[in-house]
Parts: sequence; C-alpha cells; structure tokens
Amino acid sequence: MGRHWLLELAYDGSCYQGWQSQPHGNTVQQKLEAVLGRLYNTEIQAKGSGRTDNGVHALGLAVAFDAPDRPELGKDKLLAALGGLLPRSIRAMSAVETPAPFNPRFAAYGKAYTYVVGRQKGRAPFLDGKYWHNPDWTRLAACREAAEALVGEHDFSSFAVEIVGSGKNPVRRLHRVDFEEFGPFLCVTFVGNGFLYKMVRSLVGTLALVGEGKLDPAAVAAILEARDRGKAGQTAPPDGLYLMKVFYHESEALAFKLPALPFLCPWPRS
Amino acid sequence: MGRHWLLELAYDGSCYQGWQSQPHGNTVQQKLEAVLGRLYNTEIQAKGSGRTDNGVHALGLAVAFDAPDRPELGKDKLLAALGGLLPRSIRAMSAVETPAPFNPRFAAYGKAYTYVVGRQKGRAPFLDGKYWHNPDWTRLAACREAAEALVGEHDFSSFAVEIVGSGKNPVRRLHRVDFEEFGPFLCVTFVGNGFLYKMVRSLVGTLALVGEGKLDPAAVAAILEARDRGKAGQTAPPDGLYLMKVFYHESEALAFKLPALPFLCPWPRS
Repeated sequence: MGRHWLLELAYDGSCYQGWQSQPHGNTVQQKLEAVLGRLYNTEIQAKGSGRTDNGVHALGLAVAFDAPDRPELGKDKLLAALGGLLPRSIRAMSAVETPAPFNPRFAAYGKAYTYVVGRQKGRAPFLDGKYWHNPDWTRLAACREAAEALVGEHDFSSFAVEIVGSGKNPVRRLHRVDFEEFGPFLCVTFVGNGFLYKMVRSLVGTLALVGEGKLDPAAVAAILEARDRGKAGQTAPPDGLYLMKVFYHESEALAFKLPALPFLCPWPRS
Repeated sequence: MGRHWLLELAYDGSCYQGWQSQPHGNTVQQKLEAVLGRLYNTEIQAKGSGRTDNGVHALGLAVAFDAPDRPELGKDKLLAALGGLLPRSIRAMSAVETPAPFNPRFAAYGKAYTYVVGRQKGRAPFLDGKYWHNPDWTRLAACREAAEALVGEHDFSSFAVEIVGSGKNPVRRLHRVDFEEFGPFLCVTFVGNGFLYKMVRSLVGTLALVGEGKLDPAAVAAILEARDRGKAGQTAPPDGLYLMKVFYHESEALAFKLPALPFLCPWPRS
C-alpha cells in the first residue's frame, strides 16, 4: 500500500520557469519529480496547489504526491533527503502524511501572497529578482484607503488577465490586504479564497499608482466596477511576488501573519 | 585635462569570478571597465583596492579610475549612468573626485570584512551563495574569548594561505572582531589594517570550531603562536564573506559599524 504526502515548498523563482513542467523546461515541478524519482526509484507525479509564473517565488506552495511505502522514509528522513538532493534554491519546508490521496488545488480554502517593493534610493545588488524596485511608492495611507474597496467578494475581471470572455468565474473573495514596512521594503499581503490569473500582480500595479500619487484612492472602486482590464494599472513584475501559504482551513487563513521579509524566510515554519 | 574618480562598489560575488580581470573571465573588473569604456568612449582602466576571490561579495570595494573630462558626467550623472549600464548585481554606491590619480590599494589605511553565518535549521533558498550555513555555531561567549587573542599586531601565518615561505610580511594589525546576531544570522566583523590571502576565511574556519564546541577558546592563541597553517581550522567558504569598506583615515576605521545584514544593503552609504 502506498503513502500520501503533502509538502510545503519554498523556492527562489528567479532560478526557474515557474512551477509547472514544460517540455525542455527548467521548472520546479521537474526538479522535484526528478528527485522524488531517485528517492523512491520509480516515477512520481507531484501535484501542485496551483502554478506560479516564470520568476514568481514561493514560501509555501502545497504539493501532494503518492509514493510507495518505504518504512525508512518517514517525515524527518524525507525532509532530510529532499534537503540533500534538491537544488539549494528549492526547499521542502514541511511534510505531512494524509490518509488518502489529496488534491492540493481543489481542497484549498484559500491562499496568501506577499508582494515586496523596495523604496530605497538605489537597487539592492544582492536581492536582484527578489523585489520590485519602486522608490516612488510612498503613500501608504492612500493605499490602505484604496484597498478597502477591494476587500470582500467581487468580480475581479479588471484585475486579471485572460478572464474576460473566457467563461471562467471572475468572482473571488479577498479577505484582507495588509501593508507592512521593513526598513525601506514594503510588503503588501493579500489573503483570499482564490486568485485569478495574474490577479495579485494586477492589483499591485494599480495600488502602485495610488502609492506613487498618480491615481486617486477613490478611483480604485470605479476600476473594480468597470470589469475592464484596460482601466487598471499595468501588471507588476514577477520579481516581488511570493506565494506565502496555501490554507486548508479557515482558521489558518484568519491567523496568517507575515513573519519577516519573505526572502529572509530561514525560520522553520512548523 | 582628465578627472580622477574613486568609487565604492557593491556586488553579489556569487555571480562573478572575483574582482580581477582574467582571460575569458566573468569578473567585476571586466564588467566595470566595459561600462566605463562605453560611457567615456575610450578604454578606461579601473584599479581596485584589492582582489576579492571567486564567490566573495563586496559592499565597498574601492575602485579608482582616470577618465577624460566630460562636464556632463558629474558625480550624480556618473552614478546614474553606472546604475543604468552595470548588471543589477553590481552597484556603484558612491563616487568622489580626487585631485590627483589615486591608488586605492596603497593609500588604504585598513579594511572591514563581515562574514555571515546562518544557524537556522534549514537552508534559506533565497540566500543561496550569500551566507555559510552552519547551525552548530552556537557558542558566542567562547568565540569572543578566542577572538581576544587575535586582536592586536601579530604574525598571522597560521591564518593565511601561500604566505609561509613566500617572503611576504605576515604581520598585520587586527583592530577589532565583533560578533553580532540578526535573527538566526551571525555576523562576524573584522576591522584591521590589512589582511593576508584568505586570512578572514581562515580565521572564520577556526572560530567556527570554537563556536561549535570542538576547540577550546584558549587554543586559538596557541594556533596563532605556531605560525603554521596546518594547526588552524579549514578555510570557510567564500559564500559568507563581504568586503564591507576600505578606509582611508583611521577615524573611519574606528567608527565603522555594521548597519544591517550585508545582503540587505539597500541603504545609501553617503
């Protein structure tokens, strides 16, 4: 009888072409499946809680896989083996067994994303690809006001790509938008029941206009109403985006707090 | 008549084969000289305050160059142009004009290096190549005690590579060794009048043994006395090493304080 595992993966997205396997691709899924194949000596398929795009980072992508029962590969041994075999830019943060095969995408209650903006004068040479450099994003009170219009259940067609006309449901519930500062870095955290394609980067692109003083905060409600991607700001670059956590219970989503700057992320999450 | 510039360079050493030009090399000097050549439309030679090895980082390597007088390229324009043309993993932090050609190596009064150790349980996937992962380095009081024997003017032959038998002067003055913690990160800062080849990494390799409880702090004085590289610990990896600052006045060396974790380094230094 096999065993069923659920991992939380952290990875530096600037090293990969996103999560999902693609022909001749350098993706996180391909790296993980290759290591799992070596570990169990058989082909293993890893199911992610969703895709991340080229250059987008993760601290807690949920990944499920079914594997043969290897008594020697308990939770701690599995994590240690993955630590030894995965590239250093990918880390399995936690592993839990589930009683049955688990679909991390359909079972998810919600997700948290954090977007990191650097407002210092010059670029940080050691953090290239890990934040969006935007020194003009200074107006936080206006951003918080604008974000109030976004919280709740809405049709987010104005803040998504490839949705209008696709027949997909454009309604999502955004639980919270938090703005937190760490030195010159601004972290914008979005907690919601789900996110449309490029929704977080679209929201960030528009909130950036408010933060730069180029858009009135009251205009954000009107952009949301319009259900028209053309009314919103540009899509922010992938560099600053981190999938922080996938929630399987409401209580986890309510309790989520950003522990530190995502690219520091060295603390165990368990 | 030409002008004489002195820059402070920060760079992510994990992207380069050190500072110094080499045939077919990917070095910081080659990147900088290529950009200066484009900027001034003539070949420019950049003189560094010293080499950094493959994988070693810098926040303040001093670099001097002589250039044609271009009135439009004052300090701010020069810094902005370098910011636009250099790779994002290299940044010119400051620029000052000197009245005459300047040799940043021979004029130096001293230097500060910081070595970053991560003691968290697992690796930090976003900081690969930017710190030494050593969770066993926990005994700071013992390290501070051991470092007392190192401060002052000494023959550092035990803590250097390619020195014994080379005829080079092995005596250096170490002004200070500071141990500072930032969350799970330990920063060991060395301020001295100069450093032998691989001296900081050799000192760190031996202090690590003390920090891990494998070497008695009192043994460090005996290792120093021995003037024998074979008695000391291994050379620590380049990943954690940052050349923080080159000093041209004693007062700067005395005043030096580590502002933050070196890989955060986004704040202007001026």
